[in-house]
Amino acid sequence: MRSLTAADLLEHLNWRYAVKKFDPAKKIPADTWAAIEQATALAPSSYGLQPWRFLVVNDPTIRTKLRTASWNQSQLTDASHILVFCRKIVVTASDVEAYVQRIVEVRNAPAASLEDYKKMMAGSVANPAGLPGGSMETWTRSQTYIALGFFMSACAMLGVDTCPMEGFDPAKYDEILGLSKQGYLPVVVGAAGYRASDDWLATLPKVRARVADVVKHV
Amino acid sequence: MRSLTAADLLEHLNWRYAVKKFDPAKKIPADTWAAIEQATALAPSSYGLQPWRFLVVNDPTIRTKLRTASWNQSQLTDASHILVFCRKIVVTASDVEAYVQRIVEVRNAPAASLEDYKKMMAGSVANPAGLPGGSMETWTRSQTYIALGFFMSACAMLGVDTCPMEGFDPAKYDEILGLSKQGYLPVVVGAAGYRASDDWLATLPKVRARVADVVKHV
Repeated sequence: MRSLTAADLLEHLNWRYAVKKFDPAKKIPADTWAAIEQATALAPSSYGLQPWRFLVVNDPTIRTKLRTASWNQSQLTDASHILVFCRKIVVTASDVEAYVQRIVEVRNAPAASLEDYKKMMAGSVANPAGLPGGSMETWTRSQTYIALGFFMSACAMLGVDTCPMEGFDPAKYDEILGLSKQGYLPVVVGAAGYRASDDWLATLPKVRARVADVVKHV
Repeated sequence: MRSLTAADLLEHLNWRYAVKKFDPAKKIPADTWAAIEQATALAPSSYGLQPWRFLVVNDPTIRTKLRTASWNQSQLTDASHILVFCRKIVVTASDVEAYVQRIVEVRNAPAASLEDYKKMMAGSVANPAGLPGGSMETWTRSQTYIALGFFMSACAMLGVDTCPMEGFDPAKYDEILGLSKQGYLPVVVGAAGYRASDDWLATLPKVRARVADVVKHV
């Protein structure tokens, strides 16, 4: 495996920024987008339960509706791809069961060997107050942000621009996309594509706290 | 900029797994770790406010205490590096002010040009119920998971192993590390280093839902 050099990694992450204006004429090639989907789906999650769904919105009419529900931000209609990161509203014992079945299938493992692990996970999700963050919502919501991080990082590595977006009306998104009736709610949006040559933000230096101010050693 | 190929990206992400047993003899080279710190600090956040602190724990005595507060999981003492991802307890108008000053400094921008942006951010953090997720805690907590995603992804690209860990006692971590008196609370831990050659999980196939089951198109 040929790993990246540290310099190459940092060059890509410094190149990334939250694109304000995408070039609507530039589309992400299908095979690149497929890899981005796979990379996002490879994000780790608590116990590996993946309490999420990633919704790719291609329909221009729906995109226009989402834009209206997102303070009219142009990325919703102009980016090549829109990915809505959704969290599962409730993770149940049957989700745990399905996950264990998947482990059995992928690893060709005897189901009996996973019984303790299954009970532990089922006990966890049955007691949301004991989950990290103290509630089912906070816990599943947090997991989707790992996937968001993987998505943006993967795109950067492939030379694809992104913009993470929290500024939208979740209730309207649910209404437009029919998410809650499928057991999911929207958390955050990832727009992906290619920056417009005249995006005002593209040429400004990236602003971050000094590393020494955010990373401390003990 | 030489971007990764999709195949290389996916190879690295498939290589990554949550290491159960690190090789305690293998240390991450200092320059590689410095790049990992930088990559983590390059994670994006709401408004760019970076409501976080990343604590690198090198002291073996403290590491042992953290292990005790983490169900005795061996990664705490055996991994080359331990990074505790902390969220700022309260983001205030003075944090917004400091951030705006940093923009002025990095971009050499006139402070007056940022007045509206500053007011908007200050208004946001003054009304936590209106933040995505509905509270200051949920909002800042979520942001740290983006950083966790960047951290794990960056490590994978550099051929460094990781393990994300939510299974610890936050109150004991606070007691051991003295975080809340500095305005922070622990959210999640990232262990980094190199897998032991006999880690039982290292050779098992990765378990994920089928991409078609988690990614939907409309």
